Amino acid sequence: MIEERIKSAVRDVPDFPSPGILFKDITPIFLDPQLCKDMVAEMSGFYRDKSIDLVIGVESRGFFFGLELAKLLNLPFAPVRKKGKLPAETVSVNYDLEYGSAVIEIHKGIIKPGMKVLVHDDLLATGGTAAAAAELILMQGGIVGGFDFIVELSFLNGRDKLLRYSENIHNLAGW
Amino acid sequence: MIEERIKSAVRDVPDFPSPGILFKDITPIFLDPQLCKDMVAEMSGFYRDKSIDLVIGVESRGFFFGLELAKLLNLPFAPVRKKGKLPAETVSVNYDLEYGSAVIEIHKGIIKPGMKVLVHDDLLATGGTAAAAAELILMQGGIVGGFDFIVELSFLNGRDKLLRYSENIHNLAGW
Repeated sequence: MIEERIKSAVRDVPDFPSPGILFKDITPIFLDPQLCKDMVAEMSGFYRDKSIDLVIGVESRGFFFGLELAKLLNLPFAPVRKKGKLPAETVSVNYDLEYGSAVIEIHKGIIKPGMKVLVHDDLLATGGTAAAAAELILMQGGIVGGFDFIVELSFLNGRDKLLRYSENIHNLAGW
Repeated sequence: MIEERIKSAVRDVPDFPSPGILFKDITPIFLDPQLCKDMVAEMSGFYRDKSIDLVIGVESRGFFFGLELAKLLNLPFAPVRKKGKLPAETVSVNYDLEYGSAVIEIHKGIIKPGMKVLVHDDLLATGGTAAAAAELILMQGGIVGGFDFIVELSFLNGRDKLLRYSENIHNLAGW
């Protein structure tokens, strides 16, 4: 089963990025091309019949599979980046973190009114970044078509924060 | 021709990231799934018979196509990131920028002695980052199997800096 293969590949790194946090490192997954192939096939399979118009991937671990997921769905892709990284004119949203706040942006004009947009990122933790990406979609008149993650840390209840945007919250493996 | 399709998609952004620089924005390419498909097919075609063992992609625009390029070659992939972004133990290299210096890293143990490694990034400019990635490979006893870029800005002569590592320097479009 794909979930078990992902779980055996993901590596726990204690105290990263700060003491007391057990970080789920997804990079060992990339060493197994067959697993990567099966993962992106399953992700795209779930969203194939959901009438998505655009896939957005969140910096920077949402870039690994984001473009290919879009391609398998025969859809355009756009990156969502931290403040100041996208070169042309952007639309941005500010959101709260545990300590302080952050800003994510997308190029202006990519999300058009009525477009159904899928948010892809590697991991659903507290859901703050994914919710901010959803706000970026709504600000431009788009519709949140769903969320797609490799891993969901369900004990952090991020899903509760996202259900107000879409009932489509898909992951390949969960803890 | 693929080069012309890429050139019409790439957008010039003046004065980014600093005044006087004309930035080549590749993100509009991602809006065309067929172009993305053709690009990664051409990249992998060039390296199919070059006996590569591992593909590494440089943060963060080298992540968009890097994993899929590896997958099409049926090879493992690993990300090269800026200092402090990779969670587990790393090997790192310091390199000079026009003003100051930077550090890139790769997880320890990924590059094994004798492995032929392909470096993928979006754009070859002065070649500083790609050369640093090559040094990371050599430091661990690996062999530089080649460099793969979407765009090469040949007037910046980055190629001259890379030829000492490998004669395989491939791009899809050049200015």
